[in-house]
Amino acid sequence: EDAAAPPPGDTADPFAGDPPRHPALRVNSLKPFNAEPPPELLTQSFLTPNELFFTRNHLPVPAVEPGSYRLRVEGPGGRALSLSLSELRQRFPKHEVTATLQCAGNRRSEMSRVRPVKGLSWDIGAISTARWGGARLRDVLLAAGVRDNTGDGEWHVCFEGLDVDASGTPYGASIPLKRALSAEAEVLLAYEMNGRELPRDHGFPVRVVVPGVVGARSVKWLRSVAVSPSESPSHWQQNDYKGFCPSVDWDSVDFGAAPAIQELPVQSAITEPRPGAAVPAGELTVKGYAWSGGGREVVRVSGAKGGEGKMGWGEREWREMGWGKGDGGKWE
Amino acid sequence: EDAAAPPPGDTADPFAGDPPRHPALRVNSLKPFNAEPPPELLTQSFLTPNELFFTRNHLPVPAVEPGSYRLRVEGPGGRALSLSLSELRQRFPKHEVTATLQCAGNRRSEMSRVRPVKGLSWDIGAISTARWGGARLRDVLLAAGVRDNTGDGEWHVCFEGLDVDASGTPYGASIPLKRALSAEAEVLLAYEMNGRELPRDHGFPVRVVVPGVVGARSVKWLRSVAVSPSESPSHWQQNDYKGFCPSVDWDSVDFGAAPAIQELPVQSAITEPRPGAAVPAGELTVKGYAWSGGGREVVRVSGAKGGEGKMGWGEREWREMGWGKGDGGKWE
Ligand SMILES: [Mo]
Ligand SMILES: [Mo]
Repeated sequence: EDAAAPPPGDTADPFAGDPPRHPALRVNSLKPFNAEPPPELLTQSFLTPNELFFTRNHLPVPAVEPGSYRLRVEGPGGRALSLSLSELRQRFPKHEVTATLQCAGNRRSEMSRVRPVKGLSWDIGAISTARWGGARLRDVLLAAGVRDNTGDGEWHVCFEGLDVDASGTPYGASIPLKRALSAEAEVLLAYEMNGRELPRDHGFPVRVVVPGVVGARSVKWLRSVAVSPSESPSHWQQNDYKGFCPSVDWDSVDFGAAPAIQELPVQSAITEPRPGAAVPAGELTVKGYAWSGGGREVVRVSGAKGGEGKMGWGEREWREMGWGKGDGGKWE
Repeated sequence: EDAAAPPPGDTADPFAGDPPRHPALRVNSLKPFNAEPPPELLTQSFLTPNELFFTRNHLPVPAVEPGSYRLRVEGPGGRALSLSLSELRQRFPKHEVTATLQCAGNRRSEMSRVRPVKGLSWDIGAISTARWGGARLRDVLLAAGVRDNTGDGEWHVCFEGLDVDASGTPYGASIPLKRALSAEAEVLLAYEMNGRELPRDHGFPVRVVVPGVVGARSVKWLRSVAVSPSESPSHWQQNDYKGFCPSVDWDSVDFGAAPAIQELPVQSAITEPRPGAAVPAGELTVKGYAWSGGGREVVRVSGAKGGEGKMGWGEREWREMGWGKGDGGKWE
């Protein structure tokens, strides 16, 4: 809203250092970069190839020199660790988990057809699955002096990224300490994605991976981890990534009144054929994915064949393509 | 299907010993007794009065003499406890939890309007809330030698009731051992309901209460608790209380292919006014309940005003009436 010319030096494009991307990605926003794989590519394999994994950046991609990278971990009572990348790799056992990440806005383009919703117009591809490798957040927190028995009261683990806005404010988010300490929840400080180092768009050299939880909490380019009695003060924790009643709009919304989204609900979509596609007569293969947030299981996928007023239901026609922790799969 | 006369002696009504019931209950089945409170009474108070609490019996109500009652608890390796009622009360700290129980068939009468479903035709009242008091199942299992760290693999805790069918087979059900041992899940061996001893219809003298889980696992008139590598072999665990795809019917159903229902999904219903009721012009108070299975929270209740093709959404019109662990509440 300020029409004055930017001061000299600020004219440099802060996104000029962003990495190259795969040309098949469908771009919803270039700066910051937000893109998803075409639906058909999503169900070509159970694990999404790194270069096709949906990308949800809020800010320019930071350029991190791995040799000088340090992760700060703040425990209780002023105790803190500073870990180099090799210390993170060597001091803590490497743990691997297959987990699906999903953006809270996945399928927003369909929601907007019912009622307009603010945000990026994602199709059905803002969800992807990888095999992640890294240190358990639990192990790192315990090394920083966090006690396993957290007692009563809700504590949180706040993350900050190395990605910053024009004022120097980083991206940030938090999860409940209870989830962070749960061995079963398998929260990682990941440095590997499908057996390779993290791509720059996915948080090189270290990102958080919180299985079953909205992608916004899996902070990329991780700079700090801090235990706190409060949730992250970040804009994205406080004033974004929350759900409201349909009667709320941008004039009446009270972000303080709603809880921050953590676990997402069950999700399923058809990737092939696409809506409106002409299909041959006779047998048709339909593909899609299903995922249940919060570490719960998907028990089955059912489908309805519609047309000219009649509808049939089928369950046994679906073939499972594979299921991972986190907990989803693809079917056809 | 056997038209022969029953043998002498079998003509006695096995339900003759059932207790008297409150006349306001709406009876779906008399033998076994299955009944629910009228919707209007359900939302008159946050805790449902004992005599109005929905009743879901599968068999005749057993007559238990409290002085000779013994609960058998089978731990691992042949170790077992036999507890009298006073031992259960005195050896273990009394724990209280406000929890809502719901029958899996709640609102089946509405489902059947879409597509017929087999089972009792419950309206919206097969759900009720009480303050339960008893021993934690966790404490009793630990006393029976069950170790807190259950390691890998799914173990179960099987319950049997003192209610038996004509062949002497008791009602039975099971829950995962992990839930049974979780301090947070607050599973009780309850001997109190809203500050009084359990009524006969609700399991006198001892019943299981599993907050957040389908009522069928909260076994009444509890006779035995056993840790097992398998789920309960009971009919009601194996061949009932499971969910299927709409294409499945009684000719094609394969109970072995579906998991036993444990946590139920979110539920909400309007208790006043009733469908089709004439209401006065002007302001109208609408009442109802909301409940989320599995110990998750209900974040909000939203309502829509319909009529003559237009629909408005309102959130702020709904007023919260109270929420308890388990986790539900009533609103108006
Ligand atoms: Mo997101
Ligand atoms: Mo039930």
